[in-house]
Amino acid sequence: MKAGIITIGDELLIGQVIDSNSAWMGQFLVDKGIHVSRKITVSDDAQEIRYAINQLKDDTDLILMTGGLGPTRDDITKKTIADYLGVGMEFHEPTWDRICKIFARWGRSTTPEHKNQCYMPAGITILHNKMGTAPGMLFEVKNTTIVSMPGVPYEMKYIMENGVADQIAELLPENDLVFRTIKTVGEGESRISAKIEDILDDFPDFMSIAFLPSLGQVRLRITASGEHIEKAKALDHYVEKISARLGDLVFGYDEDTLETVIGRLCLEYGWKLGLAESCTGGNIAYRIVQVPGSSSYFEGGIVAYSYELKKKLLGVKQSTLDNYGAVSAETAIEMLKGVLDRLDVDAAIAITGIAGPGGGTSEKPVGTVWIAYGDKNVQHSFLLKSGKDRVRNITYSGTYALNLLRKFLIGKENP
Amino acid sequence: MKAGIITIGDELLIGQVIDSNSAWMGQFLVDKGIHVSRKITVSDDAQEIRYAINQLKDDTDLILMTGGLGPTRDDITKKTIADYLGVGMEFHEPTWDRICKIFARWGRSTTPEHKNQCYMPAGITILHNKMGTAPGMLFEVKNTTIVSMPGVPYEMKYIMENGVADQIAELLPENDLVFRTIKTVGEGESRISAKIEDILDDFPDFMSIAFLPSLGQVRLRITASGEHIEKAKALDHYVEKISARLGDLVFGYDEDTLETVIGRLCLEYGWKLGLAESCTGGNIAYRIVQVPGSSSYFEGGIVAYSYELKKKLLGVKQSTLDNYGAVSAETAIEMLKGVLDRLDVDAAIAITGIAGPGGGTSEKPVGTVWIAYGDKNVQHSFLLKSGKDRVRNITYSGTYALNLLRKFLIGKENP
Repeated sequence: MKAGIITIGDELLIGQVIDSNSAWMGQFLVDKGIHVSRKITVSDDAQEIRYAINQLKDDTDLILMTGGLGPTRDDITKKTIADYLGVGMEFHEPTWDRICKIFARWGRSTTPEHKNQCYMPAGITILHNKMGTAPGMLFEVKNTTIVSMPGVPYEMKYIMENGVADQIAELLPENDLVFRTIKTVGEGESRISAKIEDILDDFPDFMSIAFLPSLGQVRLRITASGEHIEKAKALDHYVEKISARLGDLVFGYDEDTLETVIGRLCLEYGWKLGLAESCTGGNIAYRIVQVPGSSSYFEGGIVAYSYELKKKLLGVKQSTLDNYGAVSAETAIEMLKGVLDRLDVDAAIAITGIAGPGGGTSEKPVGTVWIAYGDKNVQHSFLLKSGKDRVRNITYSGTYALNLLRKFLIGKENP
Repeated sequence: MKAGIITIGDELLIGQVIDSNSAWMGQFLVDKGIHVSRKITVSDDAQEIRYAINQLKDDTDLILMTGGLGPTRDDITKKTIADYLGVGMEFHEPTWDRICKIFARWGRSTTPEHKNQCYMPAGITILHNKMGTAPGMLFEVKNTTIVSMPGVPYEMKYIMENGVADQIAELLPENDLVFRTIKTVGEGESRISAKIEDILDDFPDFMSIAFLPSLGQVRLRITASGEHIEKAKALDHYVEKISARLGDLVFGYDEDTLETVIGRLCLEYGWKLGLAESCTGGNIAYRIVQVPGSSSYFEGGIVAYSYELKKKLLGVKQSTLDNYGAVSAETAIEMLKGVLDRLDVDAAIAITGIAGPGGGTSEKPVGTVWIAYGDKNVQHSFLLKSGKDRVRNITYSGTYALNLLRKFLIGKENP
């Protein structure tokens, strides 16, 4: 079974909005064993929308479309679909009732735009949207099922997880694709590839690998497809073999993130975690709290952006700042000791650096970052030389620091 | 002048990677007056890459492609281009020299994969890539210029800003498209649309509007296109008219963000800013420090995730936690007073809530968030009822809190 994705909106083409919807839909489909073969993004233009449907309808069994269903005048998807199907528009009473109820609950009145949203192409299936005012639509063109949804991410997700999941369940094949992802941190794509070259040469025909680099990390997606009954077993075999070769470059699998892996280690040890962030300014804390349940091991952190707060909240000495500067091993270690002591946590990271674009010197250029990590007994410091881009430096040094902490925790082995 | 974008990679179709590249390229082109008419995403498959080029080449003057140039075996774009052009592959000595030098500087050795990266289709123009090992490529098919770049975002950006910008400069038309974006926060798309309905009806033919909602915010992009000499003037006129109507829902224009607007106000007043975050766990701090130069007004913050740290670092009283709970107006206000006092800042936000998925009760369901904001003289608190999704709650309540602070600062008018 093959699917295609159409995303509609001038804002996507001119880059005012990053299209995260189609990644989410792609993942949703792949998890159900449906292969996404192509994706087309077009503007809010009837001819372009027709073009996209025509390009995909002959080669796919399912087309997911998002965008152009809003209440405002740039949203023309509904009318285009009605024209494409050669049907008129009908007022959908249940949608109107629902909108009126939502607004009554909020104590607010509806607008004429909301009433416009209730006119739908005649004869299509309406997909309930609990998260917003525009419902989804499902219809057939020859043998292809087409779904049209709003472009607002949480509305699309609701419709996918409820209406669409139900409607396409019967179309689904036996899952003929299995894959696993090995997550690595600390080396680039080329070096990892070189390390496992011979293992890849040994892959059976039905297996393939993709290297997916991101800042500081590389994911290895290994896929086994086709009718082979042995494929799941073979997949596990090669995942094990590659993991053994890559050693501690591998931090996890599939849905694991550095943050969830650190969380699991803290829970296992019964350890509490704290942070002292300067240059990353809360990035590490924000990443840690995105993990549900992180409040069981994350005590909190101090974002000590100024000299003053480094002294006042973390006990960094004025003489240390004077003699070594705020970006130094000495300051990082004092920040670390400060957070371990004042937050009374079992392990911590301290990080201080020059994120840029300003603040660099010839001795300490933009991208110079000192990371300290450890527990009350042992503290280590590490000098990271990052690049010139501010947001990249913040994210990259955050990732680097989390990996140093991960390795430190693993080294403790049941403390 | 029209452009198309092709992004290549299985990882994009199955949603393991969100395609932020094409948004960036779209913005880059639009800023230069080049209209992006369509975007196609295909898998790492020679036939699919040829399909995408063929779909775009007749209707566009410029095609930007990313992906499939890495050193590993799933990367087949170069070979596909050579076949498409009917040329062979040639070893590119300068690229090899450059790679060797980079690795020598790092004190590391190259791998055979790096040597493979130096074979390029014969006769194409090589675009220097300072940020990575794979160079970009530029070639012509009939009258269309095609650029192929690596999918790693900062490598693509480097090649675009250097090689591509130079190469396409001569192709550029007089800019025939102008647009401005009004940034709003605090109301939904329908309500904003209803408020300005009559102004939109009054738009001349050459102007259009798009509503771009995101979590808590709506951007209004107003475009004027065509030959009209008066279009820039008309654009400004309508931007002013809409802004006057929407009042303090408008927080800025074009590149403004809530964070840069708050930064400007702090600089203007000579005020220092501090934060006390519980449920947002560093999200607000991380957003503020993304603004270059934020160290001039942002002192820092305390991420007080646990009860213990709320007491120890912010001076929240045990009796307050016992009587009202950690998620209450009383706790938020004590957190705020704590940060104003202990960080000695002029204005601050304190935020405490239940991000979910766990921790909710019938009285205080997931999504209940208390925000306190103010200065040493006046403190306000606000109850926000957010939704059920953890990361959405964190981001949305962060946005809400920043907007409350913005309005508070504006209300001070040159303190």
